[in-house]
Amino acid sequence: MADRFFCDDLTSEKPCLSGTEAHHAIHVLRLKCGQSIRLFDGVGTVAEAVIEDIQRDCVIAKVTATSFIQKPTQNCLTIAAVPPKGDRLKWMVEKLTELGVDTYVPLQTERAVVDPRKSRLSKLAATVTAAMKQCGRRWRMEIGEPQTLLSLLKQCRDSENTVLIAHPGDAHEPTNVGSDNRTVVIGPEGGFTDSEVQLATDYNARQIAWPDSILRIETAAIAFAARLRR
Amino acid sequence: MADRFFCDDLTSEKPCLSGTEAHHAIHVLRLKCGQSIRLFDGVGTVAEAVIEDIQRDCVIAKVTATSFIQKPTQNCLTIAAVPPKGDRLKWMVEKLTELGVDTYVPLQTERAVVDPRKSRLSKLAATVTAAMKQCGRRWRMEIGEPQTLLSLLKQCRDSENTVLIAHPGDAHEPTNVGSDNRTVVIGPEGGFTDSEVQLATDYNARQIAWPDSILRIETAAIAFAARLRR
Repeated sequence: MADRFFCDDLTSEKPCLSGTEAHHAIHVLRLKCGQSIRLFDGVGTVAEAVIEDIQRDCVIAKVTATSFIQKPTQNCLTIAAVPPKGDRLKWMVEKLTELGVDTYVPLQTERAVVDPRKSRLSKLAATVTAAMKQCGRRWRMEIGEPQTLLSLLKQCRDSENTVLIAHPGDAHEPTNVGSDNRTVVIGPEGGFTDSEVQLATDYNARQIAWPDSILRIETAAIAFAARLRR
Repeated sequence: MADRFFCDDLTSEKPCLSGTEAHHAIHVLRLKCGQSIRLFDGVGTVAEAVIEDIQRDCVIAKVTATSFIQKPTQNCLTIAAVPPKGDRLKWMVEKLTELGVDTYVPLQTERAVVDPRKSRLSKLAATVTAAMKQCGRRWRMEIGEPQTLLSLLKQCRDSENTVLIAHPGDAHEPTNVGSDNRTVVIGPEGGFTDSEVQLATDYNARQIAWPDSILRIETAAIAFAARLRR
């Protein structure tokens, strides 16, 4: 299968790869003129193309076929999780991208120990792109702005998202019915506080849990995404 | 909740933690005499205990309550996957343990590029123990001997395991019905060869795939485990 490259402007007949994408094509894969590649813009267009010219730091391609599919507005899955420490955040974002999650929201909670700093979060865009190249996904997973639990719950109410909060106790195994948009809320090590769980309940969130196991943040995010992806 | 420690002999009334478990209790968590801990042996027994004595490199506990649950022999889930490169193997084993997978089998296939060496695999036992301490799982995830696809298929036939092979094309989304024991077979980067897929089909394996995405080995292992765990 042709190698895939991210290109944010596929409206041109001869799109140009630059930056890290050009570097990947020229210096890592050592592609040559005439070779077939596949381009995606992350918002629904995938193009088949042939390399027409390779310059010092840019690759000019000629598009031979394109397809566009509008991103569905139903069945969307958002994972709102406290950013886990160290490499675990990057790992989580890579896996959520591969699994087809629509949006990741860095969640701020009372007990959250990691500060989801802008610099750390902005690097995740590259992780999403790399994962998309690898898995062939058509639509980019969005990285949302960091949000507090309250702000997220309000937003979900306004946009009619079903909220599932990962919390042991009075919980159900995650099931997968209907065609609504869903947001899964995953707390920090140590879990949500009682008042946070009460707040979520007040906003009609449903409790879900993994049977017989206390999952790490990134494991819960990936497991619930895999379980709830339609 | 009390900190958990692995102890392979819980038949004694005063079990002893040694090695890395003692180190963890004494030097990392700095536990003191009189504190409550929880012990597990990985084969079904969990004990509540109190620390009675702390010596240089060993912790003597006094058991106050035990519970034993026999490992179920139905609904077992085995993941047989080619070991992914580098840290990804350790990560995968950690996650499969957390999710409650019963056995991981390192799979050898025609295109497998990683040699599942004994030394690399033996280190995974420590990863399983650490993950069990974290997630509170009762039964140890077993790390099986490396197997070829043919040998695995024969074994599954003899033990009446349902085999699901992750392979795009004529595939179904994984579903979760019945109460049989299942083995999910996941190939290397580049996938299974046509003759391997034919072989699996000859042994009645069912093809499964993840919609719209080419998953990495460890992502497929975790996603199918999450999807198929009962």
